[in-house]
Amino acid sequence: MREIAVIKVGGNIIDNEAKLAAFLKDFAALPGNKILVHGGGKVATEIGDRLGIQSNYINGRRITDKETLDVVTMVYGGLVNKKIVAQLQKLGCNAIGLTGADGNVISAVKRPVGEVDYGYVGDVTGVNTSLVNTLSDAGFTLVIAPLTHSEGVMLNTNADTIAQETAKGLATTAKVQLVYCFEKKGVLMDAEDEEAVINTIDRKSYEELKASNIVSGGMIPKLDNAFEAIDAGVSKVIIGQAEELAELLKGNAGTQIIK
Amino acid sequence: MREIAVIKVGGNIIDNEAKLAAFLKDFAALPGNKILVHGGGKVATEIGDRLGIQSNYINGRRITDKETLDVVTMVYGGLVNKKIVAQLQKLGCNAIGLTGADGNVISAVKRPVGEVDYGYVGDVTGVNTSLVNTLSDAGFTLVIAPLTHSEGVMLNTNADTIAQETAKGLATTAKVQLVYCFEKKGVLMDAEDEEAVINTIDRKSYEELKASNIVSGGMIPKLDNAFEAIDAGVSKVIIGQAEELAELLKGNAGTQIIK
Repeated sequence: MREIAVIKVGGNIIDNEAKLAAFLKDFAALPGNKILVHGGGKVATEIGDRLGIQSNYINGRRITDKETLDVVTMVYGGLVNKKIVAQLQKLGCNAIGLTGADGNVISAVKRPVGEVDYGYVGDVTGVNTSLVNTLSDAGFTLVIAPLTHSEGVMLNTNADTIAQETAKGLATTAKVQLVYCFEKKGVLMDAEDEEAVINTIDRKSYEELKASNIVSGGMIPKLDNAFEAIDAGVSKVIIGQAEELAELLKGNAGTQIIK
Repeated sequence: MREIAVIKVGGNIIDNEAKLAAFLKDFAALPGNKILVHGGGKVATEIGDRLGIQSNYINGRRITDKETLDVVTMVYGGLVNKKIVAQLQKLGCNAIGLTGADGNVISAVKRPVGEVDYGYVGDVTGVNTSLVNTLSDAGFTLVIAPLTHSEGVMLNTNADTIAQETAKGLATTAKVQLVYCFEKKGVLMDAEDEEAVINTIDRKSYEELKASNIVSGGMIPKLDNAFEAIDAGVSKVIIGQAEELAELLKGNAGTQIIK
């Protein structure tokens, strides 16, 4: 069976040139098939500001109007994606940068208007695993930007969701590890102690951690999503720091979420 | 033997939403394998202006400093490329947008500094025909932005050159037609008469056209490049209007340049 790692890296790394370079070096050195899903970082907001386009948020979510869509398409699909690809190429990693629109690798619909109209935002509906496998088998490493498309327009799309859906889609034909790089070293036993990383969480211990309020707040949807991926066949979800990428995949760092 | 058409479309179409939509409809409807190489259009200059970045030109060539490189990477690789891909996807054409960096599909070097330092500008050194064939055979239509890479950075690259080099590279394994869409209906017998299109030019008639000054000025390097492509094995170069794309490929419009 194929094996593949889907790795999501977010804004805190993208925004920092030195951190990004170090992360890409570690990523390029990982053995085996891998896919990188990147977030956008603050540069989209910064470019938007310089262009005089105001970022509007509702409940912490960016509202993507037509002008903001152009900015994120430029910045995520062009600037950030191609910078990563060029750097990986230099590192000997044969990267190929895609948005969901390219080869229709990720299909999506424009988010239906409910209480809030999020604008040009995509909800993922599926992953073209055949294209991913064709390219992976041919030796290419996909670098996916947080953009999808529907009905002829691009759509701004959450990078965590793209990583999760990609991992779930691939799980039907491969053994998949899904890695979320974030600011902390993993899920913490004690929010005040950065070193108190919980090594492993399974469904049973998750319920206990929630009941005892050790896991709370923003960590709950993150872990709910992780278990959703596990339920869909992803073999392991790993949460930890980008700086420890190689160790995360070896199971020597971060929090490993298993069935 | 494989057959493929490499079609270059420039700024005059990219900049006009209605013209671009019409062109993409015609492009999507073309039978057989095809590749689209697009130019940048004025939007890069416009975005650069809005960002307060000055465009510098020497001899009509844009000097690509670091900030300008970021703008063209965003605009060509992100905004323009992904808009085209999303529209083609809607038209049922399974487009996949690439820069030269993606899968190292086009290798390049940073232009050596001579009398002029053009900055982050790429000179094409080769085309990864194996990747192009893999994707074409798998049913994907490549949409190539005028960007390459070298040594970990992106490079601004002339779209005409990318189209020509791609066509030449593919000519080793396929029967290739190279189409340049430009403002006029073809090479004209009389510059004042838009309808006086020369149907066919071969090496012999080209020499006569030059000797009689019917072909002059900017048309000469264009045609020299066309014959260079022919000499490298491209079966036919076609110059004509984007609005007549289907007829250009049938040989019913534009100027056909042959051996």
